[in-house]
Amino acid sequence: MAKRSYTILGTGALGGYYGARLQQAGHTVRFLLRGDYEHVRDHGLRIASMHGDFELPEVEAFRDPTDLPPSDVAVVALKTTQSGALADMLPVAIKPGGAVLVLQNGLCPERYVAGLVGAERVVGGLCFLCSNRVGPGHFRQVRFDHIRLGEYARPGMTERIAGIAADFCAASVQTEPVEDLSLARWQKLVWNVPYNGLSAVLDADTERLMAHTDTAALVEKLMQEVAAAARASGGHTIGASFIEKMLSNTAKMGPYRPSMQVDRQMGRAMEAEAIHGDPVRAAIAAGCAVPVMQAVYRQLRFLEDQREAGAGPG
Amino acid sequence: MAKRSYTILGTGALGGYYGARLQQAGHTVRFLLRGDYEHVRDHGLRIASMHGDFELPEVEAFRDPTDLPPSDVAVVALKTTQSGALADMLPVAIKPGGAVLVLQNGLCPERYVAGLVGAERVVGGLCFLCSNRVGPGHFRQVRFDHIRLGEYARPGMTERIAGIAADFCAASVQTEPVEDLSLARWQKLVWNVPYNGLSAVLDADTERLMAHTDTAALVEKLMQEVAAAARASGGHTIGASFIEKMLSNTAKMGPYRPSMQVDRQMGRAMEAEAIHGDPVRAAIAAGCAVPVMQAVYRQLRFLEDQREAGAGPG
Repeated sequence: MAKRSYTILGTGALGGYYGARLQQAGHTVRFLLRGDYEHVRDHGLRIASMHGDFELPEVEAFRDPTDLPPSDVAVVALKTTQSGALADMLPVAIKPGGAVLVLQNGLCPERYVAGLVGAERVVGGLCFLCSNRVGPGHFRQVRFDHIRLGEYARPGMTERIAGIAADFCAASVQTEPVEDLSLARWQKLVWNVPYNGLSAVLDADTERLMAHTDTAALVEKLMQEVAAAARASGGHTIGASFIEKMLSNTAKMGPYRPSMQVDRQMGRAMEAEAIHGDPVRAAIAAGCAVPVMQAVYRQLRFLEDQREAGAGPG
Repeated sequence: MAKRSYTILGTGALGGYYGARLQQAGHTVRFLLRGDYEHVRDHGLRIASMHGDFELPEVEAFRDPTDLPPSDVAVVALKTTQSGALADMLPVAIKPGGAVLVLQNGLCPERYVAGLVGAERVVGGLCFLCSNRVGPGHFRQVRFDHIRLGEYARPGMTERIAGIAADFCAASVQTEPVEDLSLARWQKLVWNVPYNGLSAVLDADTERLMAHTDTAALVEKLMQEVAAAARASGGHTIGASFIEKMLSNTAKMGPYRPSMQVDRQMGRAMEAEAIHGDPVRAAIAAGCAVPVMQAVYRQLRFLEDQREAGAGPG
């Protein structure tokens, strides 16, 4: 059987790294780019990584989504704040019977994609990756890289997610198929809600947040609210030991700036709706009070709208 | 009867304005100063105000509290973050049988003063004053100026608070004695907790906070938590109509920077313990959950300790 072809929709620090790994492992990979298009078309991609550095002098680069040949798997690697652009990219980017792999943050980024291509085509993935853009077409993976994959339309293990996971594993990306994508997403929110939210509001990295008694307590309180929401809304059990592990792992991690802090510093849109808004709404719809998560969400919405209004501190 | 003499402990935008008004009305007033001491000793005080501008070319200025002659009333006009300095100022600043008028923010700033001079000497006052320091010895009252006064040790009306209130009223400061100082302090916290806390965390003035749906909702939520804490801790009833009036009055007030926002902008200590810490502790001790007030308090503690550590954004 021919190797699966992939199209990376959004060649940033995440999509660029994973796509380059897949091409290095022998897959046909198409990269959709915007600002870096000309540079990457002419010079390819450069990757720095804890697994070794490499270059791909020639890649299939595209600027216009309508030029994309259909692939077996379209990888959604845009931020959720840019998901609106997917309407022009999908479903033209996938072959009949092909799949869309949604590598986005939040409670259920798959829902929007399902509306474009049909739920049965959608696979969700949670990325645990620290990477950043060094320059045009140049990405550095700093630590972690693993992915958890699951079916969107129906829980359980399938050949499709096993096959995609195997492709990524063969490309040096530790990837694990999971039976319950919804549980996996709530588990990831246990980390994302407190660290992204507080780092953005307080402009502080994870090390500072964990080094202070009050913010560490606030992180834990938010984790408990996410766990309560996961139980009320999804029937999932996320126990105290999971929360303790998240707290102690993060405390050991050293200084790390969550994406939302970086976005705020750079004046970019923050993923507050995907990471905070959707879980808050799910909790409230299930009758579960999440006062602190809701308060942080409201603070983020305020900050986001101040940014959009182009306002400085007032 | 001779007019009461006053000593202003802390000649800033608040103490400087009220003290100048009292001297203008014919009272002997002593002013304790630090940075502006020499300027005020040589040039006196200048006041700009909505009731008219005036100058006091000669004032009794002191730098060392031990030089202060005892007065009938010592007015505590320091921020609560500087209350430690009162141990050297009190009780030397008051005559035998004299009173201390505590014009500070918070749930119970009188408690610390009572420990220094005895509870029976203590009168509490809540100031509703917008004033700022224009330059050395030069203060501008912008709007509001009124004070609510009450006995600390035992609720009720006394000659003492009636007399002090009359002095302030005769000095063009609208002042009202109240029977229940504790209720008055909780009522003031209904405003102070949300606007000071959120303005400092989000660096936004009252107008911006009220103009955005999410922060306006967060303000209201915090007001409801303060009212619940007042009921649980003090047995006070603060009804929905009081909260609605606070919200609508503030929305009409135009842009105003609460003191805690200004303090954060200037790199000065914020009064988080007096305005947020004490009410949170009182609520929790009374078995009343105040999750959002506690979360904002934790954020303020974090920001305050970052400031003390001299850290920039991280």
